[in-house]
Amino acid sequence: MEAATLSRIGLAGLAVMGQNLALNIAEKGFPISVYNRTTSKVDETLDRARFEGGLPMTGHYSPRDFVLSLERPRSVIILVKAGPPVDQTIAALSDHMEAGDTIIDGGNEWYENTERRIHELAGKGILYLGMGVSGGEEGARHGPSLMPGGSYAAYQNIEDIVKKVAAQVEDGPCVTYIGEGGSGNFVKMVHNGIEYGDMQLISEAYDVLKNVGGLSNSELAEIFSEWNKGELESFLIEITADIFRVRDESGEGELVDKILDKTGMKGTGKWTVQQAAELSVAAPTIAASLDCRYLSGLKEEREAAAEALREAGLKEEVGGVSSGIDKKRLIDDVRQALYASKICSYAQGMNLLRTKSVEKGWNLNLGEMARIWKGGCIIRAVFLDRIKKAYQRNPNLASLVVDPEFAREMVQRQAAWRRVVGLAISAGISTPGMCASLAYFDTYRRARLPANLVQAQRDLFGAHTYERIDRPGSFHTEWTKLARKGNTSFAAIN
Amino acid sequence: MEAATLSRIGLAGLAVMGQNLALNIAEKGFPISVYNRTTSKVDETLDRARFEGGLPMTGHYSPRDFVLSLERPRSVIILVKAGPPVDQTIAALSDHMEAGDTIIDGGNEWYENTERRIHELAGKGILYLGMGVSGGEEGARHGPSLMPGGSYAAYQNIEDIVKKVAAQVEDGPCVTYIGEGGSGNFVKMVHNGIEYGDMQLISEAYDVLKNVGGLSNSELAEIFSEWNKGELESFLIEITADIFRVRDESGEGELVDKILDKTGMKGTGKWTVQQAAELSVAAPTIAASLDCRYLSGLKEEREAAAEALREAGLKEEVGGVSSGIDKKRLIDDVRQALYASKICSYAQGMNLLRTKSVEKGWNLNLGEMARIWKGGCIIRAVFLDRIKKAYQRNPNLASLVVDPEFAREMVQRQAAWRRVVGLAISAGISTPGMCASLAYFDTYRRARLPANLVQAQRDLFGAHTYERIDRPGSFHTEWTKLARKGNTSFAAIN
Repeated sequence: MEAATLSRIGLAGLAVMGQNLALNIAEKGFPISVYNRTTSKVDETLDRARFEGGLPMTGHYSPRDFVLSLERPRSVIILVKAGPPVDQTIAALSDHMEAGDTIIDGGNEWYENTERRIHELAGKGILYLGMGVSGGEEGARHGPSLMPGGSYAAYQNIEDIVKKVAAQVEDGPCVTYIGEGGSGNFVKMVHNGIEYGDMQLISEAYDVLKNVGGLSNSELAEIFSEWNKGELESFLIEITADIFRVRDESGEGELVDKILDKTGMKGTGKWTVQQAAELSVAAPTIAASLDCRYLSGLKEEREAAAEALREAGLKEEVGGVSSGIDKKRLIDDVRQALYASKICSYAQGMNLLRTKSVEKGWNLNLGEMARIWKGGCIIRAVFLDRIKKAYQRNPNLASLVVDPEFAREMVQRQAAWRRVVGLAISAGISTPGMCASLAYFDTYRRARLPANLVQAQRDLFGAHTYERIDRPGSFHTEWTKLARKGNTSFAAIN
Repeated sequence: MEAATLSRIGLAGLAVMGQNLALNIAEKGFPISVYNRTTSKVDETLDRARFEGGLPMTGHYSPRDFVLSLERPRSVIILVKAGPPVDQTIAALSDHMEAGDTIIDGGNEWYENTERRIHELAGKGILYLGMGVSGGEEGARHGPSLMPGGSYAAYQNIEDIVKKVAAQVEDGPCVTYIGEGGSGNFVKMVHNGIEYGDMQLISEAYDVLKNVGGLSNSELAEIFSEWNKGELESFLIEITADIFRVRDESGEGELVDKILDKTGMKGTGKWTVQQAAELSVAAPTIAASLDCRYLSGLKEEREAAAEALREAGLKEEVGGVSSGIDKKRLIDDVRQALYASKICSYAQGMNLLRTKSVEKGWNLNLGEMARIWKGGCIIRAVFLDRIKKAYQRNPNLASLVVDPEFAREMVQRQAAWRRVVGLAISAGISTPGMCASLAYFDTYRRARLPANLVQAQRDLFGAHTYERIDRPGSFHTEWTKLARKGNTSFAAIN
C-alpha cells in the first residue's frame, strides 16, 4: 500500500487487543502502520479504520515493508502471544530495524523474558519496552491503563502517543514510565493478581448475601448499584450490578444462575503467588483467589465430595438463611467487610511491588502505580485515588494498613468484618479471601505472635537457635533433657 | 589410613547430618568410608566412631583414596550444602568413579537439579539418587525417614543398608524407593511444607488456649501431654509438651515466654508453594504457614502497626480471656479443630504429590509416602498410619477429605472447628492455618460455588465465555447492553 508520508508508529499483531489498540492510536491522530503474519487480519483492521471515519492507518504485508513505512526513530508495538511468537516476531522485525529504533511488547509477558530481550537487542542498539496493557478489548479501543518499563529513551519516543491513547482520569492519563528492565510486565502481573483478589472478594460478598441473607438477584442488583455510589465505586462493582439484571432467555430467572461455577484463568495469576513466595512477601488474599479458581475447576470432585460428606453424616451443605436475620444490617456489614478486605489485598500487592522494586533497583513510585490504575483497567476504582494519596502522604509507607486514614477505616469496619466472616463460618460458607485478609490484618498488627513456640520447636529438633526478648544474642537449649529432668535451671549455649 | 577390607559404602560431607548418618550406618554394621574437604571433620568423625565402641569406619583425606576404598559397585552418599558445592563434590568424586557406581545426594536439593545431575552423570554411566533425609540430627544418628528417588538399580545396591539405617516402625523401615528422577527430593520438599503446616497449626492452638482460654504454661504442658495420648499423638505434640515445662534461668516463668517471636526458615518451604501454584493445586494451609513466618520476621513493622492501630482507635490488640469461658470445652474444641485442620493440610500435600506424580509419570504410592513418614521424620505421628490406610482402601482417592473414615471425622469435628475459628476471629486472634484449612474444606465440599459470578464478569469484560448448567457449549453474552436496555431477552453467541 502506498503512503505519502511515513507513519508515526507501527503495530504488529492484530488479534483483539492489537487491532483495537491500533484503532485507538489512529483515532487519537497518530498515523499508524499495521502488520500481521496472517494478512487477512491486516485487511480486517483497515476495514474497521475506514468504517470508523478514515482513520490514519496503513496496512503492510511483509515485515520489511512494515518497518520501512515508519518514521525514524521507529517504534513498533507487538501484540502477539507471549513466549516463542514474541521472539519470532522480534527476529522478523529487528532484521529491518536500526540502532535507536524501539520494540514495545504489549503482551502479558513474564518479566524475565523482557529482560532477556532487552539484553539481546542491546547488541543491535535496538531499545525495548515491556508494556503491560490492561482494560480488555474495551480498554484497548478507548483507553487502557498502560505500564511501560525498560528503556527510558524508548519511552520518551512514544510518550506523547501513550499519554493520548491511555485512559484519561481527572489527574492525568493512565500511563507513566514504570522503571527499568521488566518492571512494566511485573507491575502488570501484580495488577492481575490484585484483579483476581477483587473478583474473589466480590464473589464472597455475593455468596453471603445470597445464601445467608436470602437476597434475590434483583435485590443484589440494587445493592451493588447502591454500593457503586460509595467507597466501593468501581468498574467491577458496576458490572456486577449489571450482571444481576440480565434475565435468562427462558424467561425464568436471571442468566447468572444458569452459569456453570467453573472458573477459567489465563495463567499469569500463578506468577504473582510464585513471586510473592520468592520474595518472602505474604500475599494470602491473592493466593486465596487463585486457590478458589483451581478448586472451582474441580466441579465433579466437588459434587462427589458433597455426596461423600452427606454419606458421612453432614446434614446440609450450607447453613442457609436464618429467619431472624436483619437483612439491612447484613448488607451493610458485608459492604464494610468487602472494603476492609480490599485494603488488605491491595496492601499485599503494593508490598509485593515494593519488595521487588528494592531487589531490582526499579525505584517504583507506588502512588503513581495506583494513579495509573484509576482508569482503563479492570480494577479501576475511586479506592485507588485513596491509595495514591496514602503514598503521597508517605512514600515509605510500610503497609497501607498503617496509613492513618486506612487504619481508621479498618478500625471502624473490623466489627462488621468479624461478624460477616463469623456468620459465614457458622453457615459453612467459605470466604477464603475475606478470611485471608482478616488473618493478614490480625497477624500484621500484632506485636507478639505465637511464633516463639515455633522457634522453640525448631531449636529443639534442629538446633536452629532462637533470640530472646530481653537480651541480644542467639541461644540454644537442650529442651528435652531439661523438660524430662524437671530441671528448673536453664542451660544456654550462645 | 590402611584398611584390610574395602568399605561397603562411603559418605562425603561431615557436617551435622553427614557425620551422624555415617555413624548410624557404621553402627548398623556396614563398614563405611568417610571423607570431608576440611579434613579435621574426618578426624572428628573417626573419634566419635571410636568412642562409640570401635564402629567400622575408615577416614580418607583425598577424593581418590576415598573412592578407591569402596567395594564395587560403589555407592557414595554426599551431604554437602545444596547448589554449587554439590556439583563440585560430584566432579571431584566422579573423576575416580566408574560406570555402575552410584552417587546419592542426601541434601535438601531442588528436584530439577537432581534431574540435571542424573542426566549429566549418565554420560559416564554413573547412577544417581536424590534422597530426602528427614529427622534432623537425632534422626540422622538413630533412624531417619529416607526418601530416595532416581535410578532403581542404584537403590537396589543400597537397599539393605537404608532399610537397616532408617527409622523402624511396626510395619517396616521408614524408607522406600520413591520413583524416578528427582521424585525423592520432591517428596522431601512436600514433607517440609507439611511440617510447616503442622507447626503453624500447633502455634495457633497455643495462641487460642493461652489468649482466649487464659491457660498457663504448666496447664498447656498438661494439655499437650494429654493430647499426645490420643489421635494427635506425634513427635511435634510431644516436644511441645516438653517445651512448656522448661523454666527460664531467672527462675521466673517458662523459657518459651522469653523467646522472640521471629521465625527463621531455610527456604525450601517456598518451593512447595511455588510448585503448588505451578500445578494449579490449592495448598492454602501450607501457604498460610509460610506467610506467618514472613510476617513474624517483620517484628518491628508489627510493633509499629500495633501502635498505628492504637492511634487509629483500636482499643485492644486481642480480645483477651472472657470470664465466662468453659475452659474444658475450649480445650476439647481446640483439639478437634487442630485435628480437622491437619486432615485438610495433609489432603493438600498429598494432592500436590499426586498431581506432580501424574505430570512426571513417577507413579508415586501415596500410602507408602505416609508409611515412611511414620517414623524418623519431624512429622511422625499415628495420624500417618490412618493416611496410609486411607490410600490402601482407595489408591485413587481424590482427596483425604472424601475417605469415608476421615470424612466422618471431619463431620464430627466441624462444629467445634467452627466454634474455635469463630472465637478467635471475635477475639482478634488470627488463625491463618485453621482458617485456610476450614475454607479449603468448605470450598472443596461444595457442589455449587459463587464462581458463576466470576465467569459472568470475565465474559463481560474479556469475552472469555462461560458454560451453562443446563446444556453443553460455550456462551458469550453482551451483558452491559442487555442490562442497560432492561432487556428480558437473552442473546447467546456460541
